[in-house]
Amino acid sequence: MSAPSSVSTLVSAAMLAIGDELLSGRTKDKNIGHLADVLTMSGIDLKEVRIVADEEADIIEALNALRQRYDYVFTSGGIGPTHDDITADAVSAAFGLPCEHNAEAMRLLGEMYQKREMEFTDARKRMARMPRGAQHIVNPVSVAPGFIVENVYVMAGVPQVFQAMLDNVIPTLRTGSKVLSQAVHSPYGEGDIGTPLSAVQKAHPQTSIGSYPKYDGQRFSTEIVVRARDAEALNAATKDVETMLQTIAEQKAALSA
Amino acid sequence: MSAPSSVSTLVSAAMLAIGDELLSGRTKDKNIGHLADVLTMSGIDLKEVRIVADEEADIIEALNALRQRYDYVFTSGGIGPTHDDITADAVSAAFGLPCEHNAEAMRLLGEMYQKREMEFTDARKRMARMPRGAQHIVNPVSVAPGFIVENVYVMAGVPQVFQAMLDNVIPTLRTGSKVLSQAVHSPYGEGDIGTPLSAVQKAHPQTSIGSYPKYDGQRFSTEIVVRARDAEALNAATKDVETMLQTIAEQKAALSA
Repeated sequence: MSAPSSVSTLVSAAMLAIGDELLSGRTKDKNIGHLADVLTMSGIDLKEVRIVADEEADIIEALNALRQRYDYVFTSGGIGPTHDDITADAVSAAFGLPCEHNAEAMRLLGEMYQKREMEFTDARKRMARMPRGAQHIVNPVSVAPGFIVENVYVMAGVPQVFQAMLDNVIPTLRTGSKVLSQAVHSPYGEGDIGTPLSAVQKAHPQTSIGSYPKYDGQRFSTEIVVRARDAEALNAATKDVETMLQTIAEQKAALSA
Repeated sequence: MSAPSSVSTLVSAAMLAIGDELLSGRTKDKNIGHLADVLTMSGIDLKEVRIVADEEADIIEALNALRQRYDYVFTSGGIGPTHDDITADAVSAAFGLPCEHNAEAMRLLGEMYQKREMEFTDARKRMARMPRGAQHIVNPVSVAPGFIVENVYVMAGVPQVFQAMLDNVIPTLRTGSKVLSQAVHSPYGEGDIGTPLSAVQKAHPQTSIGSYPKYDGQRFSTEIVVRARDAEALNAATKDVETMLQTIAEQKAALSA
């Protein structure tokens, strides 16, 4: 018998990726997949992702929808020093907070530029702007911090910086019981396995069985993934999937014999 | 002077990517970036992307929000033969239409499986289900069609199939005037160029100037992208960006001389 807490602890999250360049195709997003991996490993369920342009009204609307629905919201992009970096303004507006130069961020950035003998330009000072009262997310790559307001974590769009910020955030989050998973490779396409796999899913309601077709240019195969928060339930369903595949193999062998 | 039609014709689109595997990190989406590229080349503005799980309520809510707001909605995923492929049901429910085996799709699939001496299983028959009255999207890779209901285009999640379906869809779409773009590489980070670039943007309100930081592990550089629907406006702004970069180079040379 599994402990009740391992069943009931669900923590949900959403991501809001911000940037015209993601929607024009110029930049292929790398942060969504990384966040998905890291959250899954941490026992946090990523439930929804939205990508919006650098337009304040769009950011505000998406952010307000997501932050009310999920335990955590992670954003990427739009916190740099140029005119099209408007995420700090949009997040401030979404929370009804003033957006202002944060004193500690100004100090951190000022010291860094002084050390590097670079001018602390007005553009660079933009990177110190955040909603009043926001907490910092440390940026070990390029110093300019991300920030946290309530359940919203605002991070950079450059993947190296996003990942470094996320590394600092993850240990501070409330995590749920992890979803365990086992993958079973099926050499058969979904058309061969669909009906019996559906029966396996019905027999194991505590698990979620996903079926992911692959196409190599010639034929389809399938990656079957069994997920559950309970190890016994996971193993029982996985065993039934394997038995199902063996049965199909025997039927095919009998037909071609 | 540019023709008025080239300024006023805007066609908007959204994408809804459907699948647990995208949110768990197991599959890294490849369709969003491809759709973004193809729509941009076609003069259609991709304005928003959402990724949701294989959960009917989530799909319906996202689809209804997007299809009312944008000219076109493209979906990927969830139209295969297994129990977790519920996109046809969800799209039908979103439109209040019955989801049923489409006669022409049944014929196409039946013929294909007969030719290949494969059983047309109940699972495979699931791939012929679609909302009543839907039009087909031809699938040259694996026959099972996508479908169209009003402004919603439902396509497969397997990238080769998604791309082949999209190739068939694009020539049928109403397209707007294309957004022209020119990229200018800046060897300087955004902190160096932010203030003068903002001035260039203000001087060229008919253009949209994006600034995309790159980090090579040592230093930041910037990709500056000027976008406009009018070629003259594009060239004028691009020239001012280049002049700006030259001025920065001369200032830096003077400082280090």
